[in-house]
Amino acid sequence: MSGKPTLAIVGGTGALGGGLARRSAAAGYEVVIGSRSVDKAEAAARALAPAARGVPPRGTSNVEAAGAGDVVILSVPWASHGAILDEIKPRVAGKIVVDTTVPLVPPKVARVQLPAETSAAVAAQRRLGDGARVVAAFHNVAAAKLQADAPVDCDVLVFADAPEDRAAVVELAEAAGLRGVHAGPLANAVAAEALTSVLIGINRHYKVPGAGIRITGLDKD
Amino acid sequence: MSGKPTLAIVGGTGALGGGLARRSAAAGYEVVIGSRSVDKAEAAARALAPAARGVPPRGTSNVEAAGAGDVVILSVPWASHGAILDEIKPRVAGKIVVDTTVPLVPPKVARVQLPAETSAAVAAQRRLGDGARVVAAFHNVAAAKLQADAPVDCDVLVFADAPEDRAAVVELAEAAGLRGVHAGPLANAVAAEALTSVLIGINRHYKVPGAGIRITGLDKD
Repeated sequence: MSGKPTLAIVGGTGALGGGLARRSAAAGYEVVIGSRSVDKAEAAARALAPAARGVPPRGTSNVEAAGAGDVVILSVPWASHGAILDEIKPRVAGKIVVDTTVPLVPPKVARVQLPAETSAAVAAQRRLGDGARVVAAFHNVAAAKLQADAPVDCDVLVFADAPEDRAAVVELAEAAGLRGVHAGPLANAVAAEALTSVLIGINRHYKVPGAGIRITGLDKD
Repeated sequence: MSGKPTLAIVGGTGALGGGLARRSAAAGYEVVIGSRSVDKAEAAARALAPAARGVPPRGTSNVEAAGAGDVVILSVPWASHGAILDEIKPRVAGKIVVDTTVPLVPPKVARVQLPAETSAAVAAQRRLGDGARVVAAFHNVAAAKLQADAPVDCDVLVFADAPEDRAAVVELAEAAGLRGVHAGPLANAVAAEALTSVLIGINRHYKVPGAGIRITGLDKD
């Protein structure tokens, strides 16, 4: 018993989800990768096995993964967000659901276009109901940087209404080698979601591969 | 002729406006401080005179200041935003109007509460009409740090629809000793406005006086 929660990564074959899966498995977390394609999930899990420090990762459907995880990390495109939440809803009651979704609307992904609910995180909480403990995080980290081994020069803003849920996800961020920052209630997640479009635009303007953010003045760097 | 625009600072007796006035005057800009109270504006201007490097700052009403400035910087509380925009509207046609306003709704200023128009910046552009060139900036800089002489560890995200207007305000930020960052269209200003509530909450949570942000990965630090 490591005492660490089992992490389900719904959409764990994508770039951001894959990076989180890899870093979490390397940090000794038991990881269950979910995907619409079980084959792809199993292949992704096999690919991670050499990097894992504890139980080897396994792959399954999104719904099975959500059921297997103590903490469920959601890393899916905005276009599938609602449908996947409906699918996993019966399996996440009482659990922390970490929503990493940025509500990008192609083709203008460098332009902030807020959803009717203001943020994906608030939309997720409404969709899942009070039973699930939605925490929003990991919006601003470039997926490619998360997939590489190098240190990532980016903070993770963590939003949740319950301070203990925020603390749990700050810990997950730190395990993945990132600094997690308590960033207030779920209603504040719009700040980080919107910032991702800003960062995409900054990447284009300055011709850089992965701009990120740091919170300054915390005196704990 | 310095070639520098004259800067009007509407609400220039406040903490943020005062800090910008001081740093801009020290950088050699001609500064006109506006306030609802002409007496206060004149007193603030006199107080800045020793720091000024060019023409001494002067103080006047908000409307007169807006008329005198080539660039008009707006630093007023959200509660007076609409009324002051209506007042200065006849004096800002064709000018860059730098809106620094964060739409905080007391008492819950650490909670993001977006206005109906999504952001103060978009509200300002609608209110002023197409004649004015609204640029949004300076949302995340702690006013107290701006008023002090020390370097400020915070970037200034600059939003505007016209790249040349963004560039003009990036230059103002740099003159004030800050790094300005091209952050996309005015619609993106919601990211920085919302981030200010996040930073206020971070100050409380971590018990620090003035958290800020840095964009990482620009390779021009």
